[in-house]
Amino acid sequence: MLNPLVRAIAVAAPLPSLGDNTGDLDRLKKVLAPQLDGVMPVVPYHRLSKVAGRFRAAGFTGAAIINEMSGSSVLVDFLPQPPPVLAGMALDLGTTHLEATLLDLATGAVLAGADLENGQIRYGADILTRIHHAAKGDGLAELHRAIIDSVNQLAAELAKASGLAVSEIRALSVSGNTSMVHFFLEINPYHLCREPYIPMVNAPDPCLAGELKLTIHPAAPVWFLPSVGSYFGGDLISGVLASGLDRQEETCMLIDVGTNAEVIVGNREWLIACAGAAGPALEGGVARMGMRAGPGAIEHVRIDPVSGDIEYETIGNGKPRGLCGSGLIDLVAELYLARLIDIRGKFRLGAAGDRLIQGSEGYRFVVVSGEDSADGRPVVLGQVDLDALMRSKAAMFAILTTLTNQVGVAFADLHRIYVAGAFGRHISPRQAIVLGMLPDLPLEIYEPVGNSSLVGAQRILLEREARERCLALVRKITYIELNVNQEFMLRFSGSRFIPHTDHGLFPSVPFFDGE
Amino acid sequence: MLNPLVRAIAVAAPLPSLGDNTGDLDRLKKVLAPQLDGVMPVVPYHRLSKVAGRFRAAGFTGAAIINEMSGSSVLVDFLPQPPPVLAGMALDLGTTHLEATLLDLATGAVLAGADLENGQIRYGADILTRIHHAAKGDGLAELHRAIIDSVNQLAAELAKASGLAVSEIRALSVSGNTSMVHFFLEINPYHLCREPYIPMVNAPDPCLAGELKLTIHPAAPVWFLPSVGSYFGGDLISGVLASGLDRQEETCMLIDVGTNAEVIVGNREWLIACAGAAGPALEGGVARMGMRAGPGAIEHVRIDPVSGDIEYETIGNGKPRGLCGSGLIDLVAELYLARLIDIRGKFRLGAAGDRLIQGSEGYRFVVVSGEDSADGRPVVLGQVDLDALMRSKAAMFAILTTLTNQVGVAFADLHRIYVAGAFGRHISPRQAIVLGMLPDLPLEIYEPVGNSSLVGAQRILLEREARERCLALVRKITYIELNVNQEFMLRFSGSRFIPHTDHGLFPSVPFFDGE
Repeated sequence: MLNPLVRAIAVAAPLPSLGDNTGDLDRLKKVLAPQLDGVMPVVPYHRLSKVAGRFRAAGFTGAAIINEMSGSSVLVDFLPQPPPVLAGMALDLGTTHLEATLLDLATGAVLAGADLENGQIRYGADILTRIHHAAKGDGLAELHRAIIDSVNQLAAELAKASGLAVSEIRALSVSGNTSMVHFFLEINPYHLCREPYIPMVNAPDPCLAGELKLTIHPAAPVWFLPSVGSYFGGDLISGVLASGLDRQEETCMLIDVGTNAEVIVGNREWLIACAGAAGPALEGGVARMGMRAGPGAIEHVRIDPVSGDIEYETIGNGKPRGLCGSGLIDLVAELYLARLIDIRGKFRLGAAGDRLIQGSEGYRFVVVSGEDSADGRPVVLGQVDLDALMRSKAAMFAILTTLTNQVGVAFADLHRIYVAGAFGRHISPRQAIVLGMLPDLPLEIYEPVGNSSLVGAQRILLEREARERCLALVRKITYIELNVNQEFMLRFSGSRFIPHTDHGLFPSVPFFDGE
Repeated sequence: MLNPLVRAIAVAAPLPSLGDNTGDLDRLKKVLAPQLDGVMPVVPYHRLSKVAGRFRAAGFTGAAIINEMSGSSVLVDFLPQPPPVLAGMALDLGTTHLEATLLDLATGAVLAGADLENGQIRYGADILTRIHHAAKGDGLAELHRAIIDSVNQLAAELAKASGLAVSEIRALSVSGNTSMVHFFLEINPYHLCREPYIPMVNAPDPCLAGELKLTIHPAAPVWFLPSVGSYFGGDLISGVLASGLDRQEETCMLIDVGTNAEVIVGNREWLIACAGAAGPALEGGVARMGMRAGPGAIEHVRIDPVSGDIEYETIGNGKPRGLCGSGLIDLVAELYLARLIDIRGKFRLGAAGDRLIQGSEGYRFVVVSGEDSADGRPVVLGQVDLDALMRSKAAMFAILTTLTNQVGVAFADLHRIYVAGAFGRHISPRQAIVLGMLPDLPLEIYEPVGNSSLVGAQRILLEREARERCLALVRKITYIELNVNQEFMLRFSGSRFIPHTDHGLFPSVPFFDGE
């Protein structure tokens, strides 16, 4: 049973007469109330004249459009006929990339999907740069306009693909990190990145699209997945919804890796979360040869430990253009297993032969020569990129150990580890274990949950239960701030080796000592 | 116990820290919820940044401003200190005249009062003319601007008199007839005056002052007394609140006379209402020598039946300028008792001596000569005015008899008759009985309730119970449309004599037959 964020309710009201002189809008509300748990819907002032006028023009028969907002039913429109499709847009509001689907709110069917680079990138590739930009003059307004423009572009694409007008999109759900939601709402992100890291708001009340100058229907509700902290956003709450972590009897974990690594562990009784900077190594578009998981991205790598020959697979099977996150992890794990890098993640100069070249920024390893690549430029991995990955993987493992240690749970006690995001979709957990990024557990423990941010946004559009549940979730989750955690710092240092200084933690990974 | 429309709630929130990273706005909502029956307040998007920013700037301590709107608590502002006075404006939105008081919402104390002519008069003295004006080009917008300008002017006066800034007025309640509320909201009044006389809305949800371009605080809620029909407005619902008609064990009646005569009869079990055009005779500013009950208005008249000498009293005891409604009724009753007019309301040519002059528009009776008047012009009553008054009084009595007849109540069964409006404040019921305007009942049955429209608006500002009660009242009242009522038409004809064709209905009034 769907309880979407917006509904069309068919109405055939008794006609006004001398014996029944109720006002037009009151007449409409009265016939709607029995279908809204007996409660009269509210009509905002700026919709009053439109709703009442259209109800009369339609001969008091047609379909009322009802938004569900902060506990009230809000009557925002009236159509002469129930619309063939009532469309809602679910949005994964990513730092580098936006992904969206258009849903039929009555059936839950996916009408279209689209994705787009976040237009804010011109003001800074990472969130921190953008937060600093927001503090300058018109910066916040610029960032706001950039993201609204991107979302409008995405909405236009979805509408076109579905044969609808963009104004026929009557709802929007937004799942994004806390900073992105601040930019989207044009509210000050200043304190997000300053101790003690406090958002202006975790759970904004829904607003209307018109208030944000979105080009979808101006009376479309915009519903935000709530955040838990500055570094634990609504996208993670989506992950909890999508994985069902909060309903499990046994203790499970959810991991999402991007620029930040966000982790939540718990079960239906308790949930504890933390987040830490994982560095940009795993974000396509940031590492030198990094790219998003798209056509031409190397996603799997195999290095023959004897011959040193490299095999790879690209997405779409075309010529390679770069490395996506999973390709990078595969590559580095294979470099380690082939003993081309050492336990500190440094190239072993004697081992790599002529694939290793010295450049102005240090050594670079040629994965694919220019002759074999898509654009004539070789696909390379620099020592700089490798160092960044080492920091990222160290941060990831330090976060996981600090968090589980806080609650006295051993990795072995985890029933399941959900891996979210593009990272989760493409990565081989085995290779991440080899690097010491993920705990050395049986591979069946790991379960990718895909773009759970988008999945969460979709469920918000369709299910009242999901909307209520995620608001309750935010209150239920205990959040640990890692930015100032001493234990984290210690564990981070210990994790800056492959697989770890304490190699007893990774019994399945070959350990090449003393190099 | 007051439950005002707007409250200031003192807040001292725990400071944010690494161990308590809740967002600013969520922190504020959380400390407020226990004082709002455990329910989190809602923050509209356009107030989000202001509220959260001010809460932080004030060091998380101060006072939250909460509007009570359509069943939700809406958090609209935060002040560093609880305000010394939280002011709300109660408005009687009259067709010809606006009257308002400024109240201290915490104590209910009256801070100031003011009144003003309705600036819409330049577009038409009466409602019907204005409804026609609204249909022309920019007419509705002009009418809307005119009334908003007038209310802004009134608000400025109230603020000045109270030593407050106009933006410190944080609530507005509006009690007006249905048409005036339509103009105020800038919504189409077209169907109000066309069969079957249906308003666009009876009970508009509260809006915010900023939406209407009012100059009081933009986040001040604007709360409207609901109407029952096109001719039975929120001002009448105010009258019911003020008189307590809906709580009486015995059957009572409420009468309000202006351009329309509105009547409601009933008790705590049932309420039945109707309204009919009473004509403009009793509206000051419409009749030729008519004026509002203000300084220089003749409010009482006595004619010596033997000498024909006229004594009068003016408001303020200055020289006379004109006749207010009560003065007019006094005058005509006295003219009848002195046999200067006949039972049809026509001047008796032989009787009035040189006070009766023939002009281009028929006979005129000189009440006060130019020498004795305030401005050198005589105060006169023309046959035209007299005819208008006869129609008004006939309509009034026909309405009363039609309504009581509908419900099988005799006048003698009425426990009390509340008389509302300026009419009720100044009129002598005895003289209205002589004219056959009000039923011939003991005078103690009649009880003036003053400007009950304003009283109702004041109670709405202060009492949640009054707000809920009047919304329930609207559903409880049965409304009879008189515009097409055959019985009313018949009774109207019978009432066009002084006191009535059936003089048995008025045993206390001398009947001068056969003239």
